[in-house]
Amino acid sequence: MISNDPYAELERRFGRMSAVNRAGAILNWDRSTMMPAGASEDRADQLATLGVISHEMMVAQDMEELLSRAEEARATLDPWRAANLREMRHSWTHENALPSDLVEARTRASSACEMAWREAKKNNDFKALLPTLGEVLKIVREVAAAKSAMLGLSHYDALLDEYEPGGRAQRIDALFAELSAFLPGMLARVTEHQARGPQPLPLEGPFAVEAQRALGEGLIRTIGFDFTHGRLDVSAHPFTGGTADDTRITTRYDEEDFARALMGVLHECGHALYEAGLPRDWRRQPVGNARGMVLHESQSLLMEMQACRGREFIDFAAPRMRAAFGKTGRAWDADNIHRIYTRVTPGFIRVDADEVTYPLHIVLRYRLERAMLAGDLALADLPGAWNDGMKELLGIVPPTDSVGCLQDIHWPDGSIGYFPTYTMGALAAAQLFAAARKAVPGLLASIGKGDFAPLLGWLRANVHGKGSITDTDTILTEATGAPLGVAAFKAHLESRYLPA
Amino acid sequence: MISNDPYAELERRFGRMSAVNRAGAILNWDRSTMMPAGASEDRADQLATLGVISHEMMVAQDMEELLSRAEEARATLDPWRAANLREMRHSWTHENALPSDLVEARTRASSACEMAWREAKKNNDFKALLPTLGEVLKIVREVAAAKSAMLGLSHYDALLDEYEPGGRAQRIDALFAELSAFLPGMLARVTEHQARGPQPLPLEGPFAVEAQRALGEGLIRTIGFDFTHGRLDVSAHPFTGGTADDTRITTRYDEEDFARALMGVLHECGHALYEAGLPRDWRRQPVGNARGMVLHESQSLLMEMQACRGREFIDFAAPRMRAAFGKTGRAWDADNIHRIYTRVTPGFIRVDADEVTYPLHIVLRYRLERAMLAGDLALADLPGAWNDGMKELLGIVPPTDSVGCLQDIHWPDGSIGYFPTYTMGALAAAQLFAAARKAVPGLLASIGKGDFAPLLGWLRANVHGKGSITDTDTILTEATGAPLGVAAFKAHLESRYLPA
Repeated sequence: MISNDPYAELERRFGRMSAVNRAGAILNWDRSTMMPAGASEDRADQLATLGVISHEMMVAQDMEELLSRAEEARATLDPWRAANLREMRHSWTHENALPSDLVEARTRASSACEMAWREAKKNNDFKALLPTLGEVLKIVREVAAAKSAMLGLSHYDALLDEYEPGGRAQRIDALFAELSAFLPGMLARVTEHQARGPQPLPLEGPFAVEAQRALGEGLIRTIGFDFTHGRLDVSAHPFTGGTADDTRITTRYDEEDFARALMGVLHECGHALYEAGLPRDWRRQPVGNARGMVLHESQSLLMEMQACRGREFIDFAAPRMRAAFGKTGRAWDADNIHRIYTRVTPGFIRVDADEVTYPLHIVLRYRLERAMLAGDLALADLPGAWNDGMKELLGIVPPTDSVGCLQDIHWPDGSIGYFPTYTMGALAAAQLFAAARKAVPGLLASIGKGDFAPLLGWLRANVHGKGSITDTDTILTEATGAPLGVAAFKAHLESRYLPA
Repeated sequence: MISNDPYAELERRFGRMSAVNRAGAILNWDRSTMMPAGASEDRADQLATLGVISHEMMVAQDMEELLSRAEEARATLDPWRAANLREMRHSWTHENALPSDLVEARTRASSACEMAWREAKKNNDFKALLPTLGEVLKIVREVAAAKSAMLGLSHYDALLDEYEPGGRAQRIDALFAELSAFLPGMLARVTEHQARGPQPLPLEGPFAVEAQRALGEGLIRTIGFDFTHGRLDVSAHPFTGGTADDTRITTRYDEEDFARALMGVLHECGHALYEAGLPRDWRRQPVGNARGMVLHESQSLLMEMQACRGREFIDFAAPRMRAAFGKTGRAWDADNIHRIYTRVTPGFIRVDADEVTYPLHIVLRYRLERAMLAGDLALADLPGAWNDGMKELLGIVPPTDSVGCLQDIHWPDGSIGYFPTYTMGALAAAQLFAAARKAVPGLLASIGKGDFAPLLGWLRANVHGKGSITDTDTILTEATGAPLGVAAFKAHLESRYLPA
């Protein structure tokens, strides 16, 4: 039965899919924060069922005709509705590209590989991962081929397009070439500069969890996190979940080190503010979703790296840290805390990396995952290629695969095409923050007083409130005057890490 | 498209509905415990959508044919599957009895009335409730008529049948006649007996919430609550939610009075143990659901009233209470605590009532709701009828409607036919506990040592594990030798409150 107003019918259906997916988002959050361990199989059944229901709505027989008929009348739609229709077609195309047995095979293969990966990482036994990782890679290649045919994109781009609509390897190649030309030299200069300067004094704990929680809660409230529309909880792996009206961020406290969990909370707060700022009238339709992983990561990194590791915010936060833990002394001066939060050290582990070395970890993964997907790198050769790349880019070689090519869950999980969005997000963050500083006089001074309203207002108007009305580059160009580039990121690193 | 194996297809569909409903149960729990206030509209949309999806699966065009074809082949099914098919037909019949505009009208009318009721109760203004309560009653009458036609039951029975499948007013009339002949005299004797004896000493607070939580958690763990399959949290109105594999109970702490919240937790624990004990292989099918509200309430009351207000459990719990709050002195002796927990006093408020007077509150509500449904009692006359009934049954007259006919949410909420299940549950609890004591030698002594395994084992075998394989009376007859009756309840009251 086809409606007389195909666009309205599509809105109705996508609204219903959104409600199912939002329900799933809360259940996923609950699984990581509240759910008793024994309920995992029950919950998996609930989530799988919601997933199947949403999928069946999307691939319903008459969807293609509804989309086509609505597209014929696109000229009658206002810009939000026209963009919404474009986004509907985009998600429909991704979801229809895959036969359901391939979707199932992918789910099965990646859960098997994820389990094998936990063991392999623990036992530093890359070989044990080969069979299941080989299976995952084989299936991801089939997925890429199927999407490639449907989308008219290269295999890698077809995967990337799911995380970052419109993202293309050609752009990444150019951006990453510039980064890999610049960063190793930059790293050497920063390391030398920091070695000559005063060394950071350690912050001595222990730090009571409740005091850490209260400090984090107070600081994100300052930044603009609205607790009538969100929560802060604990989970094994920090994330931002929930819905735009109900953003739920998590962290993991370490009684010996509050500084890392605190930056984690500020990072997730950036993600949450993006969700909370999505266009109020459209957040239950595709056009009201976050634009993609690049802008999402840009918002967490803008908050964490650009704003909160900046000297102005540290000046604001340092006395609050001292008060939270009842501390005094030189180690607790803003000077020293800023030194800790801007320390650059090449290391093996991506998630522990500072902002100078982090992109080099990503460049390595990007090169390797493209080669694996293309069949240019045999899985058995991955550890060697990993270690060569680490040597070339960061100048260090991991002593074991556990802290080398076994460290990340992404590949075992079947996520190829995801890694580059982290660094594209870092570039976008630098570019957006520079534009905000130019557009809003006294922005840094406001942040130094704990007043984030000017920054948040600018982000709401230029990023959050745009949802998916247009593509990432257009949003960036309208906000900053240029599409995604490396210049602002370079300038940021030079001014923060090599001050004149 | 109709499957070749209609029963298997029905299991698949009901399994999917179960998953959707279980997802909804967790989201409902979250709404009352975790959800930030600003997310209520978002959550309502999620829950309404899941409700519509589940409803649409149930009323799908081919369901009737599937059910009929499966019923033709019923002889080929084993007893669990045959019972499952019967339960599928039963829920299908209830859900199909109502046109969707009536379902919607009921939802709208009861939310409007619920809001009016909160105001009316606060302002002691029964008249202000009349318009919306009249609308609710009108719609409930239509619901009753529609269900009555479909089920071949009287109007009241058609409503009751939704809460307690197979429950009939004729049975309730007989049970309640016996209770209202017995209880007023019993109440007079108990009141006199307790007035002559030693008076309970008050337990002086304050009682820190964390200590209360730890005490409650420890005691329900003792009883058999499995925290790998459940949680204990806080909500404005205590309830048991979640799923059989993930039972979530809530309470509300009062720093001045721990005793009430503690019994509340033990009460909800009884509900949760029922859910957790449902047949493992069938808990995602209709036959694996709890039998009905009578047995559900019997399990909470068995735990709270029969087991935990008994002298043996108080002997076990009293030293733990003293330790939890660091208390000593005569008020904290088991004697005094038992005296507090078995005090009988006629009062105006049902939810505060002891087990002697509670059924009289229910008898009153049952009489009134039957008269209202039949049109024999005009709404405007409800306060007078309420007060007359209180005078007759409990010997007291509420000074205001707020503590009289405005105290409960059930009628504003459109729940007619629910109240009697509370007292039928109390009767069943007494009957089951007496049977368990007879069947399990030393049951009370075990409870006195904090060993609930014998009781729980008996309940698992005789109640929980039966799910909905048969009707309430058959379960009771198999477990206790008789269908639901008043004798065990009377004997229990006499032995506890009028000891020789």
